[in-house]
Amino acid sequence: MKQILVGFHAVQARLRVDPESLKSVYFDPSRRDRRMGDFLKQAEETLGERLHAADAERLHKLAGHDRHQGVVALAEKKMTIARTITEVIEDVEGAKEKPLFLILDGVTDPHNFGACLRVADGAGVNAVVIPKDRSASINATVSKVSSGASEVMPVITVTNLVRGMKEMQESGVWIIGTDDGAEKSIYDIDLTGSIAIVMGAEGEGMRRLTKETCDELVHIPMQGVVSSLNVSVASGVCLYEALRQRLAKPAK
Amino acid sequence: MKQILVGFHAVQARLRVDPESLKSVYFDPSRRDRRMGDFLKQAEETLGERLHAADAERLHKLAGHDRHQGVVALAEKKMTIARTITEVIEDVEGAKEKPLFLILDGVTDPHNFGACLRVADGAGVNAVVIPKDRSASINATVSKVSSGASEVMPVITVTNLVRGMKEMQESGVWIIGTDDGAEKSIYDIDLTGSIAIVMGAEGEGMRRLTKETCDELVHIPMQGVVSSLNVSVASGVCLYEALRQRLAKPAK
Repeated sequence: MKQILVGFHAVQARLRVDPESLKSVYFDPSRRDRRMGDFLKQAEETLGERLHAADAERLHKLAGHDRHQGVVALAEKKMTIARTITEVIEDVEGAKEKPLFLILDGVTDPHNFGACLRVADGAGVNAVVIPKDRSASINATVSKVSSGASEVMPVITVTNLVRGMKEMQESGVWIIGTDDGAEKSIYDIDLTGSIAIVMGAEGEGMRRLTKETCDELVHIPMQGVVSSLNVSVASGVCLYEALRQRLAKPAK
Repeated sequence: MKQILVGFHAVQARLRVDPESLKSVYFDPSRRDRRMGDFLKQAEETLGERLHAADAERLHKLAGHDRHQGVVALAEKKMTIARTITEVIEDVEGAKEKPLFLILDGVTDPHNFGACLRVADGAGVNAVVIPKDRSASINATVSKVSSGASEVMPVITVTNLVRGMKEMQESGVWIIGTDDGAEKSIYDIDLTGSIAIVMGAEGEGMRRLTKETCDELVHIPMQGVVSSLNVSVASGVCLYEALRQRLAKPAK
């Protein structure tokens, strides 16, 4: 199965992690800035004859829109990083680290989903868990907004989110839900163990059963007139607080 | 001068801080969920005859697009919160607190700008400083994405950003720029004093002179394949780290 990758970040991430899967990469030779220069230097070496010049019209057609930055690739669909929750936990603990999961309950907007994958990758999340029927799926928009993170981040789709959470809990993962009404803040708790952070849908928050399954609820302090943060920004604040604590106190 | 406010967050923020400035508020009576119910309860009390039912077509026309959530308002353009850097510093220090500024050098995308204002409001930033000729300006998109933060957050536009930064430094503000190549991380430094955090344009970062004027440069740790975060997420990570330190160690 073929897949279209659009924009510098998505194509460069694939170049780094799995260049063999790139069948053809098209670039706009009329774009002569540094970013394109850097890209071409990297791409020419790796791709050889799989690199092709193409005009704006062709790129637009391939990408399906004109926000392609002058780079579009045709790739083998990435082998799904076929992972289960248990496999991820075993891998991470095998490496003497503590798993960090992000659970997204109801993030259906592809821009938000892509942005969540990007910050999850930045903060060192081991896998993102989403419910099958209440999520965006990975498409070209998600891939581009994620800056390539969707190429490498294990995304585990579960049919029943509550059951997935219980599976985690049985393996010793502490599940922390974010909720405006929670008494404790994200800064009041220890995030250095095996944990999952749950973010709900914008506006509505987590579903009732998801919330009830969490081991602990925390809020993000809000100092102004706005009552909540965008879901990718909120993910960033929570996941980077976990990273901060882990960097300060490395796993034993 | 009139202004159009679109969506729940933008209209509700204005209702809270300056209801007199709302000339007419239009809502879609066919939307009968809890969010609309809560909104109408608040709006009816405050607005009386300035609240009007309108069909989808009218709302679409007023908003200029169909992502209005069923709420559009016509308002007096908010009196610019006519603030100078010095006034903000005097106000904050008068309240025995330490100023927290966000400087955006080259954030031209209205979605990113609005998202930065939203998280700045959440983290308790006192003012956002932008250069006149290299920024998005506040329009209906910015207002909506900011969830109403653009209604209340002082945004100081300066003709010469380096001169504005020097003015801050003369008043005792320590200016911290974010830069991928910096040696220290945002978690290595004390953010409890009078500070400004500078974010550059996505992809390019800060301009050379902006960077040279900073007192200190820091990076955000990146654990995966992606080389940087979205500017609003990066703003969130840095500003909330400042807030965390301030909550842990209140100003004397």
